[in-house]
Amino acid sequence: MAKLFGVGVGPGDFELLTLKAVKVIKDADIIAIPASGQSVNVAYTIAKGAVSDIDEKRIEELDMPMTRNEAELKKNHDIAADKIAKWLQDGKTVAFLTLGDPTVYSTYIYIHKRIAAMGFETEIIPGITSFCAVAARLNESLTEAGEMLHVIPASYSGFEEAIKLPGTKILMKSGKQIGRVKNIIQNMSKPQSVKMVERCGMEGERVFRSLDEIDENAGYFSVLLVKDEEKGE
Amino acid sequence: MAKLFGVGVGPGDFELLTLKAVKVIKDADIIAIPASGQSVNVAYTIAKGAVSDIDEKRIEELDMPMTRNEAELKKNHDIAADKIAKWLQDGKTVAFLTLGDPTVYSTYIYIHKRIAAMGFETEIIPGITSFCAVAARLNESLTEAGEMLHVIPASYSGFEEAIKLPGTKILMKSGKQIGRVKNIIQNMSKPQSVKMVERCGMEGERVFRSLDEIDENAGYFSVLLVKDEEKGE
Repeated sequence: MAKLFGVGVGPGDFELLTLKAVKVIKDADIIAIPASGQSVNVAYTIAKGAVSDIDEKRIEELDMPMTRNEAELKKNHDIAADKIAKWLQDGKTVAFLTLGDPTVYSTYIYIHKRIAAMGFETEIIPGITSFCAVAARLNESLTEAGEMLHVIPASYSGFEEAIKLPGTKILMKSGKQIGRVKNIIQNMSKPQSVKMVERCGMEGERVFRSLDEIDENAGYFSVLLVKDEEKGE
Repeated sequence: MAKLFGVGVGPGDFELLTLKAVKVIKDADIIAIPASGQSVNVAYTIAKGAVSDIDEKRIEELDMPMTRNEAELKKNHDIAADKIAKWLQDGKTVAFLTLGDPTVYSTYIYIHKRIAAMGFETEIIPGITSFCAVAARLNESLTEAGEMLHVIPASYSGFEEAIKLPGTKILMKSGKQIGRVKNIIQNMSKPQSVKMVERCGMEGERVFRSLDEIDENAGYFSVLLVKDEEKGE
């Protein structure tokens, strides 16, 4: 019955865990948590909200600091996958907790691929994405009828072109570049409605309802919702 | 305490309801269901999987057939909103069930806007999107690192340009146009990896792992996952 589950715990509010995520966490032999500085306690804290006795389980932290150094990333993923492979060889089920949804910019997926390639069983348990939670928090839609939705990592190449696409734009991973992002949007020929939620559903949540309001020092857990002005409310 | 909740029940598997969705459904005075032919029983059936005694509640069907006739749509939304407004005036809490997530192409949002404009309290309860469930079903990621995600309604204008965008493309609402969609992808200069899941997590689910395999008669609940070939697994 050895199996690796990638479990999406949603963006922050523990009530956004799915029934399936709760079941998988409760049934797992080992709870694996990516230790990456900021997010280590976040995914675990969310899960603990829904499964209060999670700390009676065997909890394993995997060292996976955030970096864009490819070689370092690969090394960390290899080490983490090898650890998990050993647990699976011992017949354990492993629930790897991940923020949001495991298929959207998660670190989990690199481990998933390695474990699947080794021939072990794997399963992805979907989670609520940060951008759906942000739209809900703002009490408005992401897309209607024929509108497109573009999810854009704002600190990567292609951003300046992508922000001009028709439809709704979700900007993730703005990180320390929020000032630059604001500047680019401000100079667009088509006026945009811009809102942002920082730490949606978590402690310290902040909501910004215009470009001017947005704090350039907002942190990692910030998601921007950008629509052509005429499509705004 | 009168309030309208738009409750996302996820794409099919009732275990993908969130804890919050279950709580809101259990606490609601009235469960409202959009009766649109196909999807009427779907959202309700999913919810019933998670809340088995839901039929002991007051269930109200709202007539909202799918149509692209703007005048007809507006009329149906007005009638449905007026009904809900009366329940809210009576102090009831209303849980409006919607497939997937309420902020992504849902009929709910039109009712939501009307009710909010009347001054009533509204809240959106996020749900698992069909495209996250499809990626999980295919056991692969939607996006990694700097990749973009484009969600494209395939039977609307702009599709032929949007399918060429870099990153991952999710095609929704292909409807009866799957043949046309296949043809356009087949003729792209950049080869694409194409997979499709029909009725993900529901009875009669079918998975197609290449463009050739895809059944042109597949139904409404079909989601295509399209990636540039070199980005495939």
